[in-house]
Amino acid sequence: MTLSDPKLLANIRIVLTRTSHPGNIGAAARAMKTMGLSQLVLVDPAVFPNSQADAMAAGSTDLLAQARVCSTLAEALADTTLALGVSARRRDIVAEVMTPPEASIRLLTEAQVGSVALVFGNETSGLSNEELGLCQGLITIAANPEYSSLNLAAAVQVLSYEIRQTWLEHVSWPQPEMDAATGDEVEKFYGHLETALSELEFLNPGSPGKLMLKLRRLFARTRLAKEEVNILRGILTAAQEAKQAAVKARNRDAE
Amino acid sequence: MTLSDPKLLANIRIVLTRTSHPGNIGAAARAMKTMGLSQLVLVDPAVFPNSQADAMAAGSTDLLAQARVCSTLAEALADTTLALGVSARRRDIVAEVMTPPEASIRLLTEAQVGSVALVFGNETSGLSNEELGLCQGLITIAANPEYSSLNLAAAVQVLSYEIRQTWLEHVSWPQPEMDAATGDEVEKFYGHLETALSELEFLNPGSPGKLMLKLRRLFARTRLAKEEVNILRGILTAAQEAKQAAVKARNRDAE
Repeated sequence: MTLSDPKLLANIRIVLTRTSHPGNIGAAARAMKTMGLSQLVLVDPAVFPNSQADAMAAGSTDLLAQARVCSTLAEALADTTLALGVSARRRDIVAEVMTPPEASIRLLTEAQVGSVALVFGNETSGLSNEELGLCQGLITIAANPEYSSLNLAAAVQVLSYEIRQTWLEHVSWPQPEMDAATGDEVEKFYGHLETALSELEFLNPGSPGKLMLKLRRLFARTRLAKEEVNILRGILTAAQEAKQAAVKARNRDAE
Repeated sequence: MTLSDPKLLANIRIVLTRTSHPGNIGAAARAMKTMGLSQLVLVDPAVFPNSQADAMAAGSTDLLAQARVCSTLAEALADTTLALGVSARRRDIVAEVMTPPEASIRLLTEAQVGSVALVFGNETSGLSNEELGLCQGLITIAANPEYSSLNLAAAVQVLSYEIRQTWLEHVSWPQPEMDAATGDEVEKFYGHLETALSELEFLNPGSPGKLMLKLRRLFARTRLAKEEVNILRGILTAAQEAKQAAVKARNRDAE
């Protein structure tokens, strides 16, 4: 990798989830393009495509035309190895909290080997707990504590600006530390985990979601390598087989 | 001065000249307030006050209510000791060109002793040569060379963000190097200079402005201390007196 490799910027996607105002989508596209980012993904936007989005995009309507629209955040992140959520500082979140320059280094380092994402929530409500559960870290912009409400496109501008400055400053990047699992591989692991826990009668059938959310947070925080996902799924399979054998033995005893 | 002295931010004003769209004024106010800036000055805005400005300002309408409206940029800068213009890189400008972090250090250093300004031009045409002539330096945001057109409020957001980050990072600031002349003092010097050059018959009466613009650029580039303004005006007065004596002598000889 050499200085200013455009592939690094091409591997960083901006994901806007549940955006209410189409004008913000257009303004976000403009903010991205001024900093050389091009991959826009929209999760369940209220209105898109839209003439107001086009108007606010000015000379960046090409990004809107190429934007991918997904129905869920999991779908938008399926092929990424790192997703960082942008949010006001929250006390109830255990995820790692980064500044924009720290996040830029992390994203650009990972972008050497695959797709990474920066995730922005709804204008009013921000990122939901479920959405945050799909992110491996949280980025907070150090704003005025008395009024920290950046406009969505303004937040996209600040992060895109920091990524570009970091990209311009670095001649080379360290190699990522591990071969990270993609969002899709991690989702399949969660599916396997839920099935296995259910078979083991460990999940409360009344509210299986609560424990699963806690487990998701735990694994999101650590970030899983491909190999680790394989190991964990191997353990789950072994546990499932043991349980099946136990059930079979009990049934046989009962005969 | 200690870390996070709010006076430093209060001494930094954002000046928007000839803004066409009132929505951009409101969005700029919001960008400022999220980063703790509060002093907004509008030079000859197309439409202000305005409901669209209020709508885009969201929770920062207090900044709009307190905004000062001036008819000229010189008026907006009269009591400042440093004014930096924000502009796309231009080859025809000889002023010092700074990055946003460099500019932030400069502005915060000077803000210890007086008011400083960040000047943004019209959405389409940017800063005019005349407006740039009133600035002591130029700030350029390193944008995508293929599409560098940041929205006005987005540029305000980036600069305000950089100022806040710099402000948060520094425990103390060096003292400014000199006792800089205010914009008003420098303007009075230019007026004096023009009068004196005219009396000396040095100015082309057909187009006095061209030479004056070149002289303005020269002095804007160096930035004048109060003492230097006094010295220069003393020289001008001496030259004027010499000229008057010469005219008197010539008239007497002609008698």
